[in-house]
Amino acid sequence: MRRLLFEIAYAGRRYHGYQVQQNAVTVAETLQDAIETAFKKRENITGCSRTDAGVHARQYFFHMDTESRIPEAAAVIALNNLLPDDICVKSCREVPADFHARYSVCWKEYQYRIWDGAVKEPFLEGLAARFKYPLDAALMDCCAQEFLGRHDFSAFRSTGSKEGSAVRAIYAASVRRQGDEVLFTVAGDGFLYNMVRIMAGTLAAPPGRLAPGVIARALAAGSRESAGVTAPPEGLYLNRVSYAPWEGAG
Amino acid sequence: MRRLLFEIAYAGRRYHGYQVQQNAVTVAETLQDAIETAFKKRENITGCSRTDAGVHARQYFFHMDTESRIPEAAAVIALNNLLPDDICVKSCREVPADFHARYSVCWKEYQYRIWDGAVKEPFLEGLAARFKYPLDAALMDCCAQEFLGRHDFSAFRSTGSKEGSAVRAIYAASVRRQGDEVLFTVAGDGFLYNMVRIMAGTLAAPPGRLAPGVIARALAAGSRESAGVTAPPEGLYLNRVSYAPWEGAG
Repeated sequence: MRRLLFEIAYAGRRYHGYQVQQNAVTVAETLQDAIETAFKKRENITGCSRTDAGVHARQYFFHMDTESRIPEAAAVIALNNLLPDDICVKSCREVPADFHARYSVCWKEYQYRIWDGAVKEPFLEGLAARFKYPLDAALMDCCAQEFLGRHDFSAFRSTGSKEGSAVRAIYAASVRRQGDEVLFTVAGDGFLYNMVRIMAGTLAAPPGRLAPGVIARALAAGSRESAGVTAPPEGLYLNRVSYAPWEGAG
Repeated sequence: MRRLLFEIAYAGRRYHGYQVQQNAVTVAETLQDAIETAFKKRENITGCSRTDAGVHARQYFFHMDTESRIPEAAAVIALNNLLPDDICVKSCREVPADFHARYSVCWKEYQYRIWDGAVKEPFLEGLAARFKYPLDAALMDCCAQEFLGRHDFSAFRSTGSKEGSAVRAIYAASVRRQGDEVLFTVAGDGFLYNMVRIMAGTLAAPPGRLAPGVIARALAAGSRESAGVTAPPEGLYLNRVSYAPWEGAG
């Protein structure tokens, strides 16, 4: 039995998220279908993260235990030939049996893409969120620094979710403008349900609603209403997933 | 009665081409639905070009005759609010009654985008054609020059089409590499059905199949078999449409 770790990327537009669901096409189910054809056996796979419907991943990992002797490089080629064009397999390697795609994650980085140009950009449909008012990226960058450090992020999680402690550590946060796009990038040890989308929605508040201190006060208040709206899924990218080097994956 | 000329752009992924068809969602029908809501009346519209299913337009024009007094700038805003995110209206202006979105075209430019990277790029799905062998952009650029000038393009039109003269003039043709993308750009006074896609398919022939003289010989032979395959629609962009300046549109 080998444990294989696959690195993939996907555009989430066509999928109801990563995780397998009834009556909806998901990334995981699409991967399992391709694996079943390539490996001649349906295998369970364990992803590094759940992503919502419409959310993208520039880097994503899943692991799979298999009796198959197929070489890693051949598995990459076979799966890429079987998968649709919006999912790609970048690499495959064997990892120790105690390596876990989800629990071994050291930190993750997300990016949230906003398009605030005066007219729509048809080729970003499904790949960025459109905001109809101009954003102040410098102010957003300043305010985003208030996320840094270890905080209780109760104000920044979906009201429906109850997953124990809301304490998370944010290692880096920045907002940069590139032409008509505004990019919010954030890295941390873990993220609550909808956390990045609420962070983005709070930073991208309508003109006059964001100011230094707004985010610190929302963190202190700890209530969902003290933060901003949940920004739409199409702007969100899981950007990087990092494992501790001694756990066998870079 | 005013004749309005609209400039739009669209991503063709979700559409069965520009032209209205039975039982298929097209760009023209989507525009007419939005116009019916904005102008309180269903109007006929005349596009500058037919585009196939999956083909994109970075610049596209249509004209419409209307009794409506709605200001041009207000029409742009209203339509953009009504249209889906993959179609955008860039401008609207009144043109003389003898201006015609299709017949007044002076020249058009198309671009064909090919991705020939070793692994798939999920975020280009539907926005570029993927070729699984590496392309020689310098050789393609050299051979593309054989398209320049006035020729009978019978070898470069779909076998089903019989639209009279196949003589067209090509004013510019180039192939450039940008990272893992190869861009073929071509401008001319008119294009036959599938002409750009057959040009692209001929230039992007498998290794060893393209050489100086191949295109000139196909043009001289005039038979469809002497040219290459029809490259897939998702790589094709109508890039620019130019009207003679004295006809009222720049």
